[in-house]
Formats: sequence, structure tokens, C-alpha cells
Amino acid sequence: MESNIIYVPIVLAVLGLLFMFIKMAWVKKQPAGNDKMQSISKSIKEGALAFLAAEYRLLLVFVVIASVLLYIISNVVATTSWLIVPAFIIGAFFSALAGNIGMRIATDANARTAEAAKTSLPNALKVSFGGGTVMGLGVAGLAVLGLSLIFLFLMGSFLTEGGNFYNEMTIVLETLAGFSLGAESIALFARVGGGIYTKAADVGADLVGKVEAGIPEDDPRNPATIADNVGDNVGDVAGMGADLFGSYVATVLAAMVLGNYLVQDMSQGALFTDAFNNMGPILLPVVIAGVGILASIIGTFLVSIKNNEAKESQVQKALDMGNWVAIVLTLIASYFLIDWMLPETMSMQFFGEGYKDIPSLNVFWSACIGLAVGALISVVTAHYTSLGKGPVLDIVKNSSTGAATNIIAGLAVGMKSTFLSVILFAAAIYGSYELAGFYGVALAASAMMATTAMQLAIDAFGPIADNAGGVAEMSELEDHVRERTDILDSVGNTTAAVGKGFAIASAALTALALFAAYVTFTGIDGINIFKADVLAALFVGGMIPVIFSALAMQSVGKAAMQMVQEVRRQFKEIPGILEGTGKPEYGKCVAISTQAALREMILPGLITIIVPIIIGLIFGAEPLGGYMAGVCVSGVMWAIFQNNAGGAWDNAKKSFEAGVEINGKVEYKGSDAHKAAVTGDTVGDPFKDTSGPSMNILIKLTCLVGLVIAPILGGHSEGLATNQEVKVEVQMQQESNGLYSALITETKTIDGKLQVTEKRLQGSEEELKKQIAEYNTKSHSASEKHVVKEIKFEEKE
Amino acid sequence: MESNIIYVPIVLAVLGLLFMFIKMAWVKKQPAGNDKMQSISKSIKEGALAFLAAEYRLLLVFVVIASVLLYIISNVVATTSWLIVPAFIIGAFFSALAGNIGMRIATDANARTAEAAKTSLPNALKVSFGGGTVMGLGVAGLAVLGLSLIFLFLMGSFLTEGGNFYNEMTIVLETLAGFSLGAESIALFARVGGGIYTKAADVGADLVGKVEAGIPEDDPRNPATIADNVGDNVGDVAGMGADLFGSYVATVLAAMVLGNYLVQDMSQGALFTDAFNNMGPILLPVVIAGVGILASIIGTFLVSIKNNEAKESQVQKALDMGNWVAIVLTLIASYFLIDWMLPETMSMQFFGEGYKDIPSLNVFWSACIGLAVGALISVVTAHYTSLGKGPVLDIVKNSSTGAATNIIAGLAVGMKSTFLSVILFAAAIYGSYELAGFYGVALAASAMMATTAMQLAIDAFGPIADNAGGVAEMSELEDHVRERTDILDSVGNTTAAVGKGFAIASAALTALALFAAYVTFTGIDGINIFKADVLAALFVGGMIPVIFSALAMQSVGKAAMQMVQEVRRQFKEIPGILEGTGKPEYGKCVAISTQAALREMILPGLITIIVPIIIGLIFGAEPLGGYMAGVCVSGVMWAIFQNNAGGAWDNAKKSFEAGVEINGKVEYKGSDAHKAAVTGDTVGDPFKDTSGPSMNILIKLTCLVGLVIAPILGGHSEGLATNQEVKVEVQMQQESNGLYSALITETKTIDGKLQVTEKRLQGSEEELKKQIAEYNTKSHSASEKHVVKEIKFEEKE
Repeated sequence: MESNIIYVPIVLAVLGLLFMFIKMAWVKKQPAGNDKMQSISKSIKEGALAFLAAEYRLLLVFVVIASVLLYIISNVVATTSWLIVPAFIIGAFFSALAGNIGMRIATDANARTAEAAKTSLPNALKVSFGGGTVMGLGVAGLAVLGLSLIFLFLMGSFLTEGGNFYNEMTIVLETLAGFSLGAESIALFARVGGGIYTKAADVGADLVGKVEAGIPEDDPRNPATIADNVGDNVGDVAGMGADLFGSYVATVLAAMVLGNYLVQDMSQGALFTDAFNNMGPILLPVVIAGVGILASIIGTFLVSIKNNEAKESQVQKALDMGNWVAIVLTLIASYFLIDWMLPETMSMQFFGEGYKDIPSLNVFWSACIGLAVGALISVVTAHYTSLGKGPVLDIVKNSSTGAATNIIAGLAVGMKSTFLSVILFAAAIYGSYELAGFYGVALAASAMMATTAMQLAIDAFGPIADNAGGVAEMSELEDHVRERTDILDSVGNTTAAVGKGFAIASAALTALALFAAYVTFTGIDGINIFKADVLAALFVGGMIPVIFSALAMQSVGKAAMQMVQEVRRQFKEIPGILEGTGKPEYGKCVAISTQAALREMILPGLITIIVPIIIGLIFGAEPLGGYMAGVCVSGVMWAIFQNNAGGAWDNAKKSFEAGVEINGKVEYKGSDAHKAAVTGDTVGDPFKDTSGPSMNILIKLTCLVGLVIAPILGGHSEGLATNQEVKVEVQMQQESNGLYSALITETKTIDGKLQVTEKRLQGSEEELKKQIAEYNTKSHSASEKHVVKEIKFEEKE
Repeated sequence: MESNIIYVPIVLAVLGLLFMFIKMAWVKKQPAGNDKMQSISKSIKEGALAFLAAEYRLLLVFVVIASVLLYIISNVVATTSWLIVPAFIIGAFFSALAGNIGMRIATDANARTAEAAKTSLPNALKVSFGGGTVMGLGVAGLAVLGLSLIFLFLMGSFLTEGGNFYNEMTIVLETLAGFSLGAESIALFARVGGGIYTKAADVGADLVGKVEAGIPEDDPRNPATIADNVGDNVGDVAGMGADLFGSYVATVLAAMVLGNYLVQDMSQGALFTDAFNNMGPILLPVVIAGVGILASIIGTFLVSIKNNEAKESQVQKALDMGNWVAIVLTLIASYFLIDWMLPETMSMQFFGEGYKDIPSLNVFWSACIGLAVGALISVVTAHYTSLGKGPVLDIVKNSSTGAATNIIAGLAVGMKSTFLSVILFAAAIYGSYELAGFYGVALAASAMMATTAMQLAIDAFGPIADNAGGVAEMSELEDHVRERTDILDSVGNTTAAVGKGFAIASAALTALALFAAYVTFTGIDGINIFKADVLAALFVGGMIPVIFSALAMQSVGKAAMQMVQEVRRQFKEIPGILEGTGKPEYGKCVAISTQAALREMILPGLITIIVPIIIGLIFGAEPLGGYMAGVCVSGVMWAIFQNNAGGAWDNAKKSFEAGVEINGKVEYKGSDAHKAAVTGDTVGDPFKDTSGPSMNILIKLTCLVGLVIAPILGGHSEGLATNQEVKVEVQMQQESNGLYSALITETKTIDGKLQVTEKRLQGSEEELKKQIAEYNTKSHSASEKHVVKEIKFEEKE
């Protein structure tokens, strides 16, 4: 069992995919409604698929170019294999596939949800959540399956009997990073492209339809309405699917890489062995991910309501029930897995502090910290963005003095929300690191991501319900159908905001784990910002998320203006369109969104990928580390700011639907204050659906690019001689005074020149052993890592 | 001459202050206009002085508490003298005095400028710029005088014949840092308080007066109009004066501290001596500052126009002329001063690279880089915020589709403007460091700040002209008076925006110099963000500017809403107020702004000062360094973003005054697009006048607090043994094969235990010397610094 444990996640992933197919078949079997509903659903599906097809054609070009570059890198650098190219391509393909599966089921489920809502709310939840489940399991199943299979294949290719396990495993994981790079690249483009698409359509449709012409949301007379509904799918479903696929893979990969360092740490003195082919710490994250799929499947069975008269809170409770059961099951399983797969006490190297003995239970506590902080950040997010809470009410109150004070209040809420989020997040870094080093940080992130299948099911059912409402509106179904889908949609909005808080927290921890992997891999002595070039790079890195957000926002603004002009033109030129007798040209609006999204996603995507390469190649490994840190710090801040400001504005606007009291007067939809709130919501749209959610891909992708090019940079910043040999000998003996003394002789040959260092230490046995271990660490670390030919460690008493 | 050079800046500062008194008397001698004008001017002056008095009363409490804390620190820590307390108090007092002088002259000059504008535009410029000159010279003169005198006094107290010069000078400068801390603390409160005051009044007056009641700016019927004009003085004049006083002092101090490290670097082997009592590098920055005052006085004579029909561009040209002459004169003088005061070649330590020989001319080039980057950042700022340029036109265009797209476009412009600014700024760090280490970075900042007197004269004349316009409007003078003051005001807006770009660039460089001083002072091995606690602190630091901005914006929003309600109440309750027969209660609006400013400035001020202390005390020196870096990176980004977005929105709104073409149609004031632009401008107001300009004080004050508490933290994070002795001996000899060999013996005694390290090196003479230098660096650095008892460096051939 132990030595074949890698097959466990494979089996669990296949199980997840099987369950996905069963659920998919069930959803498709549901009645799809009348002809009009089917025709609208078909239009949405066609528009969405057409966009995805166009997007994939464009991304194919990117994948080809990137593959060629990766192939060149793999030929130049000894420690990189050409197999990184197929790994990259498979990663890209799987990511696209995950988005595609999700979008097909979502567009199939919308009319069926509307149809189900005719009969009852429980049925509507069942169908829409069924669609979400398909997507969640598809993403998680593909991620775990892809990772495990490629890992298995690469181990077969690189691990040799009696070879240097650590070095060979490093090549395996470096190659596996190609899979993650492929997934995350596609995720970035899908997220940005989808985000631009959906918000251009949404803002355009709202500005002319709702504000100028005074027709309701999703009204079939609005030419942009199909584009708007397509946008919900390509942005909130396909974009988010690719995003979470990438996050999930990156998190597990980072934990595996750090697991390898842990194996190396424990191989000081004697080679580390365990029952899991000596790689328990490396396999643990994949196994936990596999178990997370199983726990998610169990969780999905618990999401259901009985009462047809249920309100938002009951639906939310059903979702929470499923979510928490999945989390708790995973956590319990993790406890036993950690206990089983890790040695009871691990010798772990802490930067600048030498080796410490860490009980394996500490890794479990790190995972708990990850989950606790994730949950708390969700609570903070909910506080700043929920209806009826202080921050949203503050925005509502400020709407009474106009759009300007509404905007100021919304910006302030977004900014203020960074406070607790960052404190929690810093506590998570600090706490999980103190417990179990960067491996602990990685496992904290893995714990957060373990129930991705469940999370995504919850996240994806919202847009399906939203679309179902659109179908109901456009097909002019009875009011109670729309009311039921609105309940689901409203719950979906809350889960979406909370999901974003969770996503940025896990992304930040993952980025740190990748960052740690990068530093260790390049062999630099840490990232010292007291060096001017590193500090300058830190500033440049801090600027990237700001520019990225600016480009995304500007793209939405530009495309929305085009959309506004097109809708105005149709209203003017097509006779009878507002009376419902003329047929709007939906296709033209779909085309505007499609073209804008494809055109505008290129620049931010390329900036993300190319800038770190340039900085790494020109300035070296340490400045690139500074750049990565800058992107992370600034990216986290701008993500929280934008997501929460957007969420708060959205709900401030929604507050007016039920009526809110401002200065003793109840204000409703249509009041001046409401109009101010609509303006705020429109500003918030690109914040929360385009630039904000892109931040977490940006920071992870930056770190992944760094990790992949790390082998080229190894020692680059040190200007090190390549033909360097190092020999270290240690002799230890007890002196007459009871103390011990040690003689460390280090012989270096650099370019044929000899350099001998002798060091004598005196102290108690324990002290000396600690110091020798640290000395030995130094010999391994940094500039010498790639050139050490032989290290002898002899201990005589 | 050489040994008494410290008297040169003192004489120049006194000269500056004398010239200030002459100019002040001249301004006061000008005719102050009719009774109504004098009465309005008096109301403004009284309101402003009342605010300052209330502010100073509150700050007195702060100064007393801070003084007690500083006194306790000075008693606990051996390397801190109790004299830091009077230095702190004098710094705080001088800062308040500088703001006070500026505000008195500004409020005296406003009616006189209006009166002068009756006769001609050249006269109006002369009076308003005369007022600005008084303020500029007051600030610069007090700063240089205060710094030099306290420095002179402290040298007398601490420097001893035959004592350890470097250690004693460190105490002198650490105590002098108290002066800077006092100045910068007051600056922070003055900037934030003033910013909240002015924007609460401005936004409140605009929202009800202009938008709701449709009466023009500065209309005497508007109850908030006096508060608005008072705000211009307490925010733009007193706040800015204190801000620049603090910046100026901090920049010179940072350069002096790094000059001391340079002296230490050059004292390797033998004690450094020069004709300037061995402290040329330390005195250079003060002397340059003194010369800058003289150059500024010369520059002010060149600011004048002849033509009464002159337009903005000619006024701008006159200001540019004076400014550039001052800059070029300072630069020429700097060349000769650097050549004279620094040794031709300096041995300078570069972190991680050992010692390098740096020609003194490199310091001059660093200063040039500082000025060039400052000028280029001003160009970038002007591009993003000027009328008629792409970014502003883009916002104008987006106003046609409503307030939401206007806001999105403005936010995007602010964000995008970070790109070039940060690139330039990173280049300045990198370039000036490469040329002359952190001393080069400090001199680059000093060069930027050297002509502060001139810069401030240019910055301060704008608000005076703005106020003159207000007086003209409220006294119902003829239209051509207002037209003339409007020309001056419009030029003032541009110089204000450009000044902000310059301010943030110099602040960032100063912060870096302080950061470098901090790292060297605490004796840590740099700031390594690969340590979890440092990384966590980096994140927390990155969050502080965001929270600070949020608090400032929210305060403005809150106070503006109160103001709106008060103005609405007066319009409703005071009979005949809108017809001009009822008298508005100006005092009530002044009181609202005053109370709001005082109440709301406390929290952000305390956060800035207390958080670094907490982090330093709990987590140690290196995490505090990470925190400081986080504040700098994030603060620079948010400063640029907020200042430029605010400036661009302002000018987008102004564009409508002359009419702009949008989609082929010319839109004017009063159009829907203009209304959208007014909304954008209102959002931008707190950005550009409250939170944005506070950022540069925030980052400098954070670094200053770190520097002042550095002695408490020394070695804190290292947990080092205190009774440690180190002896290093180096023997070098030529081998038979022509190569050299060196034997380095390091004997350490830690807690009575012996530890001997021998290191043998082989190589060419040059190589070896370099390696020995690096080795020697290591022995000096970090943990051992405070405990090295004896170092012998012998070189035998």
C-alpha cells in the first residue's frame, strides 16, 4: 500500500470524474422548458462557445510560442528537461478543458433550472447546484489526475536506482511546474478575457437599458442582453473554472516542491527513508487533494432544502452544511494522513536559524491555521460586503449626498477592508512558518484548497441561477419563477464575495510557498532588500498589479462605451425595438464583447509573463525575488481593495430594492440616492469581476514563471565560477576538559586555484553538533549548491 | 575657513531669514484694499489662526507625551542622549512656526493681491509671489538654521579629543534625528488635519452651493465660503509648509547620517582625516542646503512679467525661469563643493560586495540623477494631469457616458501613471546607488530638495492667488480682477500637481536613505524577506498606506456630509439668504471643519507613529525593516495613484469651462458630461489634497521612527552574546609560483570559550586584497559590530 500510494489520488480523481459524468447525465435529463427557453439557452450557449473557440484559437498561438521558448530553455539548462514542454501543453489543455466542461454544463443547466423553478425552489436548487457540482468535480478531478499521472510518468523517466534522489526529484518537480505554468497561463487569459467580456456587456447593457431607456434587467428588448448572459458564463463560469484549476494545481505543486526540500533537509548525515519510496512529504499534498475530492462528493449530498417557501438564509445554510462537512472530513483525514505519511519528528531547516526538530503534528496545525485564517478572512469579507452591515450601510448613507460621496465611501470601505485581511494573512504566514517552516505555509494553502470541488460547486451555482433568471425574464415566464431564481442568485452573490476572500488568501499563501521554492531552487542566500537592485525591483513589482488593474479597468471602460453606442444605435435605428415588435441584433453586441475581450487580454497577460523573465535575465535571481515579493504584497492589497469595494457597492445598490432608511426617510429604487448607488455599482463592476479576481492569478503566475526560469538564473547574481570543487571534512573529539572540539576543513578549488579553510570549534557536544549542522548547511546553500562535487561528513568521537 | 565651514550654512540661513523679513515688510506695505476686502481677509485670517491655535493646543499634548517617551528611551539606551528631547521639541516648534509664518503672510497677501490685480497682472504676480517667497525662505531658513545650530551644539556636547569619532558622531546624529522627528510628526498632523479641513469645506460648499443651489464658487451667499477659503490656507499653505519643512530636514539629516557611515568606511586601516575636522561628507549636505537658499533668493528676482495681457504660459515661463536658475546655480555650486569637501577617491562599502573606490565626482553625478529623475517625474506627472493631454481627454470623453465611466477612467489614469513614475524612481535608486552607494541616494534626494525655498515660493503663490480670487468675488470687485487672479490660480494648479510629483520622488529617496541608515545603525545583516516574520511585516507595512488613505478619505466624507447638512439648514432657515439680504452664519461652517479636522487627524497620525514601535519592540529590527520597506513601496504607489487621479479629474472638469469636443459635439459647463466630470473631481479632491500628499510624510516618518528607536533594537533579533571578543590577523606573502597567499586568523572568545578560524587564500595580489577586504567587511558587519573589542589588520608582503 505505502509504496503505491500515488495511485490513491489517481483513483480518487477518476472517482470524482465518474461522479461528474453521472451528475452531468442527470442534469441533461431534466426538462429543458419550452421552445423559447430552449432557444434562448441555445443562443447563450452558442455565444459562449463561440467566444471560447475564438479565445482558444488565440491562446493556441501563445501556447506554441511559449512552448518553443520553454524548449530552448530546456536545451540550454542542464537541470531542465524538454519534457517540460508537453507538461506545459497538457496543463494548458486541461485548464481549457476544465473551463469548457464547466461552461457547457452551466449553459445546459440555466433553462433547466428555470424550468425546475416552475415547480419548486428545492428543485431549482437541485438542478443549479447539480450544474455547479459537475464543474467543481471536473476541475478538481482533472487537476489531481493530471498532476498525479504526469508526476508518475516523470518519476519513471528521471528517478534512478542509487542516483541522487534529491537532485533527480528536483528535475521531476521542475518539469511538473510546466504543467502548472500551462494551467495558470491559460487561467490568466481566461480570467482577464472573461472578465472584460462580462463587464463590458453588463455595464453597456445597464447604462443604456436600465438607466437611459428605463427597461428592466434581462429585458429581451435590450440588444446587449444575450451578450450580458453569455458574459456571466464566460467570465463567472469558464474564467473562474480555469482560475481555480490553476490555483489548485499551483498550490499542490508548491507543497510538493517544498516537500522535496524537506526530504533534503532530513537527508543530512544519512539518506532519508520512509515506506512511501522515501517521498512521504512530497506525496502528502496530492493525497490530501485526492481525499478532498471524496469529501466534496459526500458534501454535495448534503446540499438540499425541503421547504418551497425557503428564503436566502435557508439556502445559505444548506450550502454551508455541505461545505463544512467537506472541510471537516478533509481535516480529519489530513490528521491521519499526516500522522501516517510523515516521520514523527522531522529535521527542518529554518533560514538563518539552522535545523530544528519539528513534530509532524505541527504540519497538521499549520493546515488548521490555513483553514482558520481562510474562514476568518471569509468572515471579514462578508462583514465588509454584506447587506445590512455597517460598511454597506455607510455607503448607502453616503449615497444621499450624491454619486461622489457614494464613490468616496465605497473606496474607503475597500481600503479599510485590507486591515483585518492583511493582519490575518500575516498571522497565517508567521504562524504556519513558525510551526513547520515553508512546508507548513504550503500545507496551510493546500488545506484551504483541498475542498476546491465543493467550493467551486458553490461558486458556480450562482451564475447558473443568475442565467436561469435571465432565461425566465426573456421567456416571459411567470413571476414566481424569477422570484425563486432571484433567491438563488442573491445567495450566489454572497458566496461569490466570500469565495474571492478565500481565493486571495490561498493564492497569497501559495505564492509564498512558490517564492520559498524559488529562493531555495536558485540557491541564493535569501532576498535581501538592503541591496539597491533588489529594492528597485521590489518597487517595480509593486507597480505591476496597479498597472494590470488599470489596463483591465480601461479595457472594460473602452468596450462598455462601444457597447453603449451600439445599443443606442439599435434603439434609434431599429423600428419598434422598444415596443417589442422589432428584433434587436443580439449578435452585434456579442461580437463587440468578444473582440474587445480578445484584444484587451493580450497586453496584461504578456506583461505578467514577460516582465519577470526580463528582470531575472538582466538583473539576476535576487532582484527577481524582490520583484516577486513586490507583486505579491501589492497584488494582495489591490485584490482585497478591489474585490471588497466592488462587493460593497453592489450590495449598497441592492439595499435600495427592499428600501433603506437614510436620515429618517425610506428610499427606494428610482430615488436620487439609488441612482448614486447605481453609479457606484457600475464603478465596482470591473473592480470585483475583472481586475480584482485577476490579482491572485497574477501573483501566482509571476512566482511560477520565476520558478520555471530559476535554473537559468542559478548563481547568475553571484558571478560564480562553474568549475568549482568543494570538499568538507569534519573531525570531532572530546578534550581533556570535558568539552568537545571540532576541526572543519573545507577545500575549494576554483578555476584550478586552491583555497583551504580550517575552522576550530569548541563547546559541549550538543552545541558543536548544532554548529556543524549549520556550517554544513552553509556549504549546501547558495552559490555553491550547483557546483558541490563531493561532501564528506565524518564524525569521530 | 575649512574647519569653520559649519558657520557657512548658518550665515546663509540667517541671510535667507533677513531677506524674508524684508519681503514680508514689503508685502505688508502694499495697499490692502477697501473695507469689505479687509474685513473678508480678516475673517479668513482669524478662521485660519483659530484653527492653527486649536491644532497646536492638541499637538502640545502629543509633544508632551512623546517627549516623556523619548526621555525614557534615552535613559534606557546607552547610545541615546536625553538631549533628543529638546531637539524633538525644537523640531516640533520650528515646524509649527514655519507653518504659522507662511499662513500669516498668505492671509495678509490675499486681499493685497486682489488690490494689486486692480492695477495690473504683473503687480498681482509680484504681490502673490512675494507672499510665496516669504514662506519659502521662512521654511528653508528655519530648517537650515535649526539643523546647523543644534548640530553645532551637539558636537560641542559629545565629540571628545581622541575619542572614537564615529561612535560619538553617531550619538550626535541620533540626537539630531529628534529634531527631524519633531518636525515630521507635526508635519503629519498639519498635513492630515489641514487636508481634512480644506476638503470638507470645499466638497461641502460645492455640493450644496454649486450643484444644488446653482450659485458660483466663492459666492458670499454660501455659508461655507469662508471655511472654504480658510481651508485653502490651513491645508495648502500651513500644511504644505510644515510638510516641506519636515521633508527638507529629514533629507539633509539622512544624508548626514550616511556621511558618517562614509567616514567610518574610510577609516578602515587608518583614521579618516580631512580639513573639515574630518567630517567633510557629513557637512556637505548642510552646506549644499545653505547654498540652495542663496540660489533661491537669486531665483526669486527673476520671477516677474512685464505684459499686463500675459496669459498662463507667460506666467508659467517666469516661474520656470526663476526655478531653473536656482536649480542650475545650486548644481554648479554643488560641483565645486563636492570637489572641495570630499576626498578625491572614497573607499565605500557596498553591501554584499565589499569595498569599492569611488571618485568624489560620482557623488555629483548622483545629485544630477536626482535632479534629472525629479524633473522627468514632473514631466510624467504633468502629462497625466494637464489640460489637453491624452489622459485628461480620455476622462473627458468617458464623461459623456456618465459619472461611472468618468470615475473608471480617472482611476485607470491614476493607476497607469504609476508605471513611468516607478520605473524612473527605480532607475534613480539603482543609478545613484551604483554611482555612490546609499550616500549617492541621499545626495540625489538632497539635490532635489536643495532649492526648497524656491519650490515652496512657487507652490505657495497658487493658494494666495486662489484666495485673492475669493476675496475679489466676495467683495464684488470688477470682473477683470477675478480674471487676473484666475490666470495666477490656474498656473498655481499646474505647479501644485508638478510639485507633488517632485515631493513624492524626493520623499521616496529620502526614505531609502533613512532606511539605509536604519539598517546600518541597527547592525543587522540587511533585511531578508525570505524570513517569514520579515515577509509578514512587509505585508503589514504595505497595508498601512491603504488604511491611512481610507481613514483620511472617510474623514473628508464624514465632515463634508456634516457641512452639506449645515449649509442646507442655513439655506432653509435663514430668510433671504439666497437673495443676498440674509447674512449666512459663516462661523458655524468654520467650526464644523475645525472640529472634524482635529478629531480625525488623531487616529491616522497615531497609527503612523505607534505601529512601527510595536513591530520593532515585539519582532525586532529586521521585521521592522521589512515593515518600513512595505510602507515605502505601497506608500509611493498610493501617493502617485491618488495625486495623479485627483489632478486628472480636476483638469477634466476644468476642460469643460472652455468647452470640449466629445464625439463631434462641443460640451460646456452645465452639460450632463460636465456634471459627471464634477462628480469625478469631487472624488478626486480628498485623493489629491488629503490622503495623497500625506503619503510622503507617512513613509518618511515611519523610517524616522525606526531610526530613532533603532538603538533599542540593536542586536535584538540576533540574541547575541554581549561578552564576545574578536581578533583578526592577516598575513600575506608571495609564493614561489608568483601567486600570493594569505592567512587570516580569527580568534573569537564567546562567553569565555575560544573559537579559532584560520582561512588560507591563494591568488593574484589584487584578487587577494579584494577578498581580504570582503572578509574584513564581514568581521565588521552585523552581529559583531557592537561587540568587537579589537581588530588588527596587518599586511605583510
